[in-house]
Amino acid sequence: MAVNQLMSEIKTINGGTITDVKGFKAAGVHCGLKRKRLDLGAIVCEVPASAAAVYTMNQIKAAPLLITKESLSASAGKLQAIVVNSGNANACTGQQGMQDALEMQKQAANHFQIQQDYVAVTSTGVIGELLPMEKLRNGISKLSVESTSDAFAEAILTTDTCTKEVCVELMINNKKVKIAGVAKGSGMIHPNMATMLGFITTDAAIESSALQQILAKATDETFNRITVDGDTSTNDMVIAMASGLADNEKLTDAHPDWQIFYEGFKHCAVALAKMIARDGEGATKLIEVQVDGAVNDTEAGKIAKTVVGSDLVKTAIYGKDANWGRIICAIGYSECSINPQAIDISIGNHQTLKNSSPVSFSEEAITAYMNQEETIVIHVQLNNGHGTGKAWGCDLTYDYVRINAGYRT
Amino acid sequence: MAVNQLMSEIKTINGGTITDVKGFKAAGVHCGLKRKRLDLGAIVCEVPASAAAVYTMNQIKAAPLLITKESLSASAGKLQAIVVNSGNANACTGQQGMQDALEMQKQAANHFQIQQDYVAVTSTGVIGELLPMEKLRNGISKLSVESTSDAFAEAILTTDTCTKEVCVELMINNKKVKIAGVAKGSGMIHPNMATMLGFITTDAAIESSALQQILAKATDETFNRITVDGDTSTNDMVIAMASGLADNEKLTDAHPDWQIFYEGFKHCAVALAKMIARDGEGATKLIEVQVDGAVNDTEAGKIAKTVVGSDLVKTAIYGKDANWGRIICAIGYSECSINPQAIDISIGNHQTLKNSSPVSFSEEAITAYMNQEETIVIHVQLNNGHGTGKAWGCDLTYDYVRINAGYRT
Repeated sequence: MAVNQLMSEIKTINGGTITDVKGFKAAGVHCGLKRKRLDLGAIVCEVPASAAAVYTMNQIKAAPLLITKESLSASAGKLQAIVVNSGNANACTGQQGMQDALEMQKQAANHFQIQQDYVAVTSTGVIGELLPMEKLRNGISKLSVESTSDAFAEAILTTDTCTKEVCVELMINNKKVKIAGVAKGSGMIHPNMATMLGFITTDAAIESSALQQILAKATDETFNRITVDGDTSTNDMVIAMASGLADNEKLTDAHPDWQIFYEGFKHCAVALAKMIARDGEGATKLIEVQVDGAVNDTEAGKIAKTVVGSDLVKTAIYGKDANWGRIICAIGYSECSINPQAIDISIGNHQTLKNSSPVSFSEEAITAYMNQEETIVIHVQLNNGHGTGKAWGCDLTYDYVRINAGYRT
Repeated sequence: MAVNQLMSEIKTINGGTITDVKGFKAAGVHCGLKRKRLDLGAIVCEVPASAAAVYTMNQIKAAPLLITKESLSASAGKLQAIVVNSGNANACTGQQGMQDALEMQKQAANHFQIQQDYVAVTSTGVIGELLPMEKLRNGISKLSVESTSDAFAEAILTTDTCTKEVCVELMINNKKVKIAGVAKGSGMIHPNMATMLGFITTDAAIESSALQQILAKATDETFNRITVDGDTSTNDMVIAMASGLADNEKLTDAHPDWQIFYEGFKHCAVALAKMIARDGEGATKLIEVQVDGAVNDTEAGKIAKTVVGSDLVKTAIYGKDANWGRIICAIGYSECSINPQAIDISIGNHQTLKNSSPVSFSEEAITAYMNQEETIVIHVQLNNGHGTGKAWGCDLTYDYVRINAGYRT
């Protein structure tokens, strides 16, 4: 079935969140890691859920990631709770950090009365400082889950300026299924994964391994296609949990509704990825790069990400400058297969380059586009195959420098 | 012979330049590509010189590179002149651009009465605009070589704030040999090559192929280890010319003085590379990253370059923030072989991390270091082998954004 047709069967629930999904509740409190704002949260499922996770490719992995990875393995892919703190990444904290992550897991397990390896732990924030465990223990004891996600969505933020949530509904076997997500991420964003955290809940019935397939594929096309500053963090994680309470026939890749479930899941991932990119530190614009005509989809994605990650392209967008020269330069150093003479580039609907030669365009029209639109779309046609891919990022501004010249991470 | 001992036999000539080398003269004029400043230059040798060149790895290569490459091949590695314009990169200019680069070469050849394929052409500046050939022809006809390089060194600049020259002297077979260089580069710097241009002259007697060996090796350890903004340009080139007028026994890798010649050449390349990095757009600091204990030298260099290229490390340096967390994060995403638990990091002489665990250090002392010194040295010990490497870059500042949000490249 064509993707367009599938997309029309996916209903966006405006204002919907992870707790609108059958079986899931969430909590958020202030325990003292940040000065005033919420800094500790949890998602809890009323039953053990099938779970899947993806982690940063950075070889320096924070303690909570390692604990979570082990637990997911030990529990054969089951999770029933996720506990998250912000303000401290618990990264590069040695043996003490590992012990602290374990204790955080244990305290949460006791508090929610769930077995320990059904609890995932995640942290985000400053690298290299030990968790203040007294505050954390007190905070965990105060966590009280509710049917709203506001507190959780706030508790996970660091330099973000807004919360990031999405929810869709679709039919699997004539059963209503919801998929929802919440995320954070602002700086140190260049996922392969990168300090973003994402949490996706669904009430679909699906095995952990099948959910992992869905998550991995969606991640490749979404979370791994965003970049704010090229720095892949030590803490990234996306965790998906499926409660099964929608009571559909279990989803597998042989299920007739597998594709629509994937599209719904990916829709949530795209929405969260774009929210993260748009909220990049100091950003004033979301930049979307669409690449067509590459030798394959992987290369298309790599080229798109290279373009949207170029400091020179990012500053040009900030300056409302339709600088295709920097765009083609980035394409040229992407280390992908291109025909240097066959490249077309458009900014918005304005073509600026055809067959790698400049075409005349209205500078005023492009400047107006770049002033008015919040999303700047760069379209690249490589005329070198059938691969397509998208990536998202943001402009590079004075505020990025201001924020990062003064933040101890 | 130990490198240290060799280094003591290499004499830096303060204020020395490419025209202090036997056989070489240079010129620079204003022809109208820039508003007022010099924008057209040439280096001419009184005899055909053995030549070597390295070029950008960007797949989008400007017309002048392709012409120069072909000529060097056709002339079996001989050059007698290099003509350079700034203000226009003659890149992405299609067939017309190729014709214009050829005409530039031909006009220069006629003017200096040299055979056409003994003339290299290079351009730097804005991408995508055709060369104004009338102005260029007039300019070429005005070029008049002298024994000083000031005009040439200025004529090649774009967003640089200063000229960049170096000169050394050493003994080959008891003959005095000089090696000198001049370069430009400020933004769009991430050599693999990157919009930097470098011109190295020597009076040593050496075949083109041997000179290419020297140049390639030195480039790997110097020009390919600098980054200002991660953008590898369409125009980079380094050209080396050897007049042979020092009259030494021809240098080959079997010559007893091969190593000292290499060290002298590399000394020039290091000096120019550092000048380029220090003059990065908006930079207030030169950053030098030294990596030891990698599995091999190539990985050490790659890790060093990743660290010095991280936007988060660059902004931290700008903010005088001893942020080792961002440094280890960059090491972790460098895609090299590391032991995540064995990393030591120092900033200046101040150790901040040992075995990947934070050690206490004086924040005031480090801040003072970062305020006072113009070169910030970051030392990484990976404790994972014997590979060593260095890379250079600069801080990321408001001025970088200002310059690049308003420059049409």
